Amino acid sequence: MTIKLYGFGESGHSYKVALMMRLAQIDFDLRFVDFFKGEARSPEFAALNPMGECPVFVDGDLTLTQSGVILDHLAKQTGQFGGQSEAEAREVLRWTLWDNHKFSSQIGMTRFLMNFLPEDKRPAEVIAFTQARIKAAYKVLDTQLASHTWVAGGEGPTIADLSCCAYLFYPEPFGFHRADWTNIDRWLSNIEALDGWQHPYDLMPRAFPVQA
Amino acid sequence: MTIKLYGFGESGHSYKVALMMRLAQIDFDLRFVDFFKGEARSPEFAALNPMGECPVFVDGDLTLTQSGVILDHLAKQTGQFGGQSEAEAREVLRWTLWDNHKFSSQIGMTRFLMNFLPEDKRPAEVIAFTQARIKAAYKVLDTQLASHTWVAGGEGPTIADLSCCAYLFYPEPFGFHRADWTNIDRWLSNIEALDGWQHPYDLMPRAFPVQA
Repeated sequence: MTIKLYGFGESGHSYKVALMMRLAQIDFDLRFVDFFKGEARSPEFAALNPMGECPVFVDGDLTLTQSGVILDHLAKQTGQFGGQSEAEAREVLRWTLWDNHKFSSQIGMTRFLMNFLPEDKRPAEVIAFTQARIKAAYKVLDTQLASHTWVAGGEGPTIADLSCCAYLFYPEPFGFHRADWTNIDRWLSNIEALDGWQHPYDLMPRAFPVQA
Repeated sequence: MTIKLYGFGESGHSYKVALMMRLAQIDFDLRFVDFFKGEARSPEFAALNPMGECPVFVDGDLTLTQSGVILDHLAKQTGQFGGQSEAEAREVLRWTLWDNHKFSSQIGMTRFLMNFLPEDKRPAEVIAFTQARIKAAYKVLDTQLASHTWVAGGEGPTIADLSCCAYLFYPEPFGFHRADWTNIDRWLSNIEALDGWQHPYDLMPRAFPVQA
């Protein structure tokens, strides 16, 4: 039975998982979630994921949510992208948690406020505040990548790279200028050069703007 | 050699780890970080944790950061609080990631803005915005606890409980009213009843207000 992935183009968290499966050459069937029409808040979706979030990963009887859990599961199943040692696996988890706490979470929200809300509803003070916080996070990531090719510090890419990079490939403005961050820029180019890499909007259909 | 934990009373993330060690009866030596004097931004601290965050856990040659990584390590080392099956371990990781993404991260920031900044520097729009987001998260947690005694759904408490509960024990206002959330309230009482439980300010010295 083919794996089902519930997600949509704009969801960076869905992209993390879709990209992992593309790189690991795992077939999956994308179930489009019409997010901006409120589908993730529907009772049907709540039955699938009470957290009300994409992605949701369904493989037969196994249903998983939270991109970090799905990535960890896929790394264990495929033996790929999980790191080469116990120490590297800990680094993978460390950066995945950091990404969830300080990076993708803040970027996803800021990008939403700046691009997917009507112009007159965009909270300027909140946007300025979160942009300043994300800037501190770019610096942490860029510093790590100044002395390491990959985020978790090993020989090859891991799910920590897939987690941290996802939102940085989107075209909508949220305050990130790739050219400003030399090490992040080189690292993103290395990810784009991986066999099978695809841009989020080539991998999953977009839900915005809302279709009538 | 005794384990060293770098942290301070107000740090909910440090509390998660300190509480775990207290419950598992692991001795540790608390290294107080004078956070509000900027100690976490010092070069010495950056050498310990380039992410500039507490807690930092040092056990001989092993230095770990990110509370979720330290909790995972301690669960594996002690065989406690990690869940009883592979499925429960996945739930533990799922809720730990959710906590980092949607819960402790937002609460920690909101509590900081409302209590540890000078009154004339508190950004009202940001606080209202994050409080609304956290309210949605209380609902997710309360719903989970309506049908499960512990967050990860198993027979006993896990590190997911220790991660999600930490900020809810603090006395400073940030918009949480325990009596409003029946299931969270009962769950917090169950945690307080665990053998060895201590309040964060009894477990670690406070860094606020700043001492001259």
